[in-house]
Amino acid sequence: MPSGSVNKDLQHERNKCSFNQEEFTLWWVGGREQLDDKRSIENFFKSQPDFHDKIPLHFASHKEKYEEIIRKATLIYSKTRQFLQNQGKYDAKNYLKFWDFLLGTGLIKEGNPLRLQFDMFIPAIVGHANAEQQAKWLDKALNCEILGTYAQTELGHGTFLRGLETTATFDRETDEFVLNCPSLTAYKWWPGALGHTVNYAVVMAQLYSNGKCHGVHPFMVQLRDEDTHMPLPGLELGEVGDKIGYKGVNNGYLGFNNYRIPRNNMLMKNAQLLRDGSYVKPVSSVLTYGTMVFVRVIIVKGMAYELSKVATIAVRYSCVRRQSPINPDQPEVQVIDHLTQQSKILPQIAKAIALKLAADNLWQMYLKTSSELDSGNLNRLPELHALSCCLKAVSTSDAAKGMEVCRLACGGHGYLSCANFMTFYSLATAACTYEGENTVVLLQTARYLIKSWNQALKRQKLMGTVQYLSEYVGKSFKRLAWSDSIPVIILAFQAITANKLRLASIHIENRKKAGKTPEEATNMTGLELVQAAELHGRWFVLQSAYDMIENTCQTASQAFANVLRQLCALVVYGEALQVAGDLLRFTTMSENDLVKLQQKYEILLAALRPNAAGIVDSFEYPDYSLGSALGAYDGNVYERLFEEAMKSPLNQEPVNRTFELYLKPLMRSRL
Amino acid sequence: MPSGSVNKDLQHERNKCSFNQEEFTLWWVGGREQLDDKRSIENFFKSQPDFHDKIPLHFASHKEKYEEIIRKATLIYSKTRQFLQNQGKYDAKNYLKFWDFLLGTGLIKEGNPLRLQFDMFIPAIVGHANAEQQAKWLDKALNCEILGTYAQTELGHGTFLRGLETTATFDRETDEFVLNCPSLTAYKWWPGALGHTVNYAVVMAQLYSNGKCHGVHPFMVQLRDEDTHMPLPGLELGEVGDKIGYKGVNNGYLGFNNYRIPRNNMLMKNAQLLRDGSYVKPVSSVLTYGTMVFVRVIIVKGMAYELSKVATIAVRYSCVRRQSPINPDQPEVQVIDHLTQQSKILPQIAKAIALKLAADNLWQMYLKTSSELDSGNLNRLPELHALSCCLKAVSTSDAAKGMEVCRLACGGHGYLSCANFMTFYSLATAACTYEGENTVVLLQTARYLIKSWNQALKRQKLMGTVQYLSEYVGKSFKRLAWSDSIPVIILAFQAITANKLRLASIHIENRKKAGKTPEEATNMTGLELVQAAELHGRWFVLQSAYDMIENTCQTASQAFANVLRQLCALVVYGEALQVAGDLLRFTTMSENDLVKLQQKYEILLAALRPNAAGIVDSFEYPDYSLGSALGAYDGNVYERLFEEAMKSPLNQEPVNRTFELYLKPLMRSRL
Repeated sequence: MPSGSVNKDLQHERNKCSFNQEEFTLWWVGGREQLDDKRSIENFFKSQPDFHDKIPLHFASHKEKYEEIIRKATLIYSKTRQFLQNQGKYDAKNYLKFWDFLLGTGLIKEGNPLRLQFDMFIPAIVGHANAEQQAKWLDKALNCEILGTYAQTELGHGTFLRGLETTATFDRETDEFVLNCPSLTAYKWWPGALGHTVNYAVVMAQLYSNGKCHGVHPFMVQLRDEDTHMPLPGLELGEVGDKIGYKGVNNGYLGFNNYRIPRNNMLMKNAQLLRDGSYVKPVSSVLTYGTMVFVRVIIVKGMAYELSKVATIAVRYSCVRRQSPINPDQPEVQVIDHLTQQSKILPQIAKAIALKLAADNLWQMYLKTSSELDSGNLNRLPELHALSCCLKAVSTSDAAKGMEVCRLACGGHGYLSCANFMTFYSLATAACTYEGENTVVLLQTARYLIKSWNQALKRQKLMGTVQYLSEYVGKSFKRLAWSDSIPVIILAFQAITANKLRLASIHIENRKKAGKTPEEATNMTGLELVQAAELHGRWFVLQSAYDMIENTCQTASQAFANVLRQLCALVVYGEALQVAGDLLRFTTMSENDLVKLQQKYEILLAALRPNAAGIVDSFEYPDYSLGSALGAYDGNVYERLFEEAMKSPLNQEPVNRTFELYLKPLMRSRL
Repeated sequence: MPSGSVNKDLQHERNKCSFNQEEFTLWWVGGREQLDDKRSIENFFKSQPDFHDKIPLHFASHKEKYEEIIRKATLIYSKTRQFLQNQGKYDAKNYLKFWDFLLGTGLIKEGNPLRLQFDMFIPAIVGHANAEQQAKWLDKALNCEILGTYAQTELGHGTFLRGLETTATFDRETDEFVLNCPSLTAYKWWPGALGHTVNYAVVMAQLYSNGKCHGVHPFMVQLRDEDTHMPLPGLELGEVGDKIGYKGVNNGYLGFNNYRIPRNNMLMKNAQLLRDGSYVKPVSSVLTYGTMVFVRVIIVKGMAYELSKVATIAVRYSCVRRQSPINPDQPEVQVIDHLTQQSKILPQIAKAIALKLAADNLWQMYLKTSSELDSGNLNRLPELHALSCCLKAVSTSDAAKGMEVCRLACGGHGYLSCANFMTFYSLATAACTYEGENTVVLLQTARYLIKSWNQALKRQKLMGTVQYLSEYVGKSFKRLAWSDSIPVIILAFQAITANKLRLASIHIENRKKAGKTPEEATNMTGLELVQAAELHGRWFVLQSAYDMIENTCQTASQAFANVLRQLCALVVYGEALQVAGDLLRFTTMSENDLVKLQQKYEILLAALRPNAAGIVDSFEYPDYSLGSALGAYDGNVYERLFEEAMKSPLNQEPVNRTFELYLKPLMRSRL
């Protein structure tokens, strides 16, 4: 049993911390008020025994997991409400804010199916329902009188929205829509909580009226009887089965067979269908981009937090675990003393911070663009959309990879479910696919970049984050003058991106000249385009991290500023070494410069190592939100591993019944 | 329900195949006899209803999984025996050969706990027990009269063998060993099947006699009563809990508290302990390397097969799935038509083949070295060991990464458990850690390379696979003359490895001059050393693939030779593009050459695309060994996904009990 005392090696690490951790934490969470809120809600939940699993859910069956998670999810909702009422702070907005601290992997590692209510269902009502419709459904949704989800993806159709098959055909006689799935591939497939949890959904379907298709539109659809929860006639409803992660989210399928809803259930904030079946177009189709950008900001930030949790686990374990002496006849060292180990885990801390700052920066741009939108100015939307696409791809893919690096750096014990790495990884890797598959969204960014490149060729002025492209057109190819200062390395990412775009653009043109259609030529240049888009995203991450950290350092204590600048340098050097080949191509970096950069990187790892435990402590994650035997604050790794093993149902009896049933007969069956 | 007919798009792909698939399959499995054996055993198991899960195990609880897997594992053993007896082929060797076809992910996706009997327990007896001891235990083990495992790793100790804590202290009075775990970290932890399955184990422990420690030695230990299966007094025994994968393997822990075994239970083929407690050293400690190399050959080959299975699933799904048109107003294309998709999945086919050929090559070297060993010649063992280390690391890491690339290329559906990607990934990623953690084994290869490099500096002759290093010492730095012919690219991998070693060697020397111990200097140069070792392994994979494919092409049909050479070129170009920066540093490759290489790679992808389905068909994996709704031969992806969802226990009732228990109260609790 964990003794309550802190592991000696870990305590020793903490004693070495060179900076004030409260200063770091305040910066990380965004200020005093945020920190107080965070601590009060975390303490409240920490003291609630109902949330702590007696038997870890990874031992339970699929069905048991679902049932236990619904118990916890409903309890979290009502407990949060109780907490906020006690504090006199209850309203739906506060509710969401507080819930965010406990997001995803906090109280329910396997995903909370009721989050969809707030992340998808309510935003869909706000975004698509007109005033009258909001009056009818919004309050009910906010109070959880009805539970809903958002149903778009189909069994045979994902990313390509226009390919959706489900139809909503207007029947003028009855003033109703008739919903149908013309084939198996038209079944809605994947919406969270759809299986057995919700009783409503906003459903995307092809709108047909007077024999004409008007494209995909949203409809409010009741799925289950409010009293009995029975699926309504005309619907086929269930869950899609077990998944790699999000095991609690009850993703479902939904088939329509002549299912009728009133015409007024079409959500008509934007487009409308009138009583006579005539269709009124939305003012602008660009507006829906706003929501997509919003969701992606959330994703980027989420990835940053989840990666920082995983890095916390890996750092703590690496301080406690001892393996292999460095000098012979000495004791085995803490594994964090091996340079190779430092190179695996320390960059993940730095990456998490850089991604968080990029998300903050993107959020500022989003707010600015939103206020411009309200005054009818749509100029910045395409730029913002392109940026959100590549950041979504870079953040999810880097977070997922970084988490696996951390897990593998924790050796065999990282493979145990109680280490909890797979939960985090399963969330991050899912995000590589949902809300726009990463390659697809990178190609969207690339389309914007190529368009901007062509504008630059015509000497047109470019938007803020792509302005740098204009500096690389027109003049003959010239390498950027290399230096290993941080600002120059960041500039080099612009140079690489621009030059890759230049090449891609030439290759597209060549292919068009050879007789390909523009789209075929673009498809054939897909690999180069994806690379350019990714590099643009990486540049933005580095630029945001550098700018925001330098800004913080203006007022930070010297000790804290030192650490922040080291972290910034680590992520910049690390990214530079990843693209060393491109630096050799597009800057004046020499072989010797490259060797020097590698050495600076190694020196930085060693310099950050003594503060590693202090930095992850400053993220201030409570043990229950890490959920890991390897990552607890007290560092009593081995005691916790043993304690977790003891919880296995198989360990509750010395001999399993399979001995008498199968093993003994086998051992006695000698020929 | 799958209709029995083949998906139209997939059939269309098959019709395009340009080569004779039987010719490919014969080459892949190694000849007519192997192919006949494979088909007969696969057909036999296909017709056994007892092996087919009615409810997929991913829906079951941890305990249910274990119990069902023990049922299947014992049944596989007795059915195989029955099959072999029918054919008049029964002996333990054949048994193993046949079982291999069904390895790991075949009949039991979650790992077969009885495999340890043959992979670890029996080899440990053969390798460590003397003749008298083998007479006592070997036949019993071969007939499964006793079930065993191999217990080395401890809770606090993995890779560093000398750090093991469990002690076996000789008690001269009783002629016994007393086994103890002096601390929690000394508990054996991880051995497969140890938890509740086996009743014996070969245990590694520090041998103490007459007050002196003689290091780690193997002991045969009975763990459970043969009649009742109860753990014997003095032992603490159970399983370590749930894991990311290998969920059926029942990995266990084991603590000793003054547990006594007879002196003769020390396995004394090599070292011995005499009646008076005096210790007799083994003739050579090098011999144990042989077993490690053997196990690693098996791992490399296993990775190749598992990766080829995953590529099979991804290719078939990519032929069936349609998404996004290329030309506007055209239908959505098969996703394999997108160049970005080709670049994800086709290289995995080529990589799997290259790894398999590298394993074959390594196996030939192993056989040669073993026969030399028998005549007392140990010369080649260090070279072989170094090679097996880096190949183990490269193959496991590339297979794991390649599998995730394939899964992600299958979008959302790849995330479903019934797609079965995670099973394969969980096996491959585990192999990155077991049998020598990848970074640790790469550092072992690096040690050998640096030693060879230093010998080359002294103009000493080097062993076969490192001979090339001599060409890079002594003379001043000179870039290799670049051309994009396959042999030159493979030479370039030698050039890169040698130059990286040169740099690492200089940096080690500089650090020593600056006052570091040799070991500290080596640790500080760890990143460069790991890179060099990995590149050496990659060179060997490419060289093996090229040599063996060219050899096959001497007698192959033109059509088959074309495909093989395309696959070889794909893996060589792909690896080259991965190290483009190093090619720019250490060869005369220009910017323009690099752009050309990228284009050749893209052209090759398009050229291989029409044969993709034909190639994976030629691997000839039966549906049950892929176990994937996305990868079945008939390509009826959507029907199978639906059918799998229908099996979910949650889908057996329209309303789950949590509605009345939790959801309804929540929805009725409006404030």
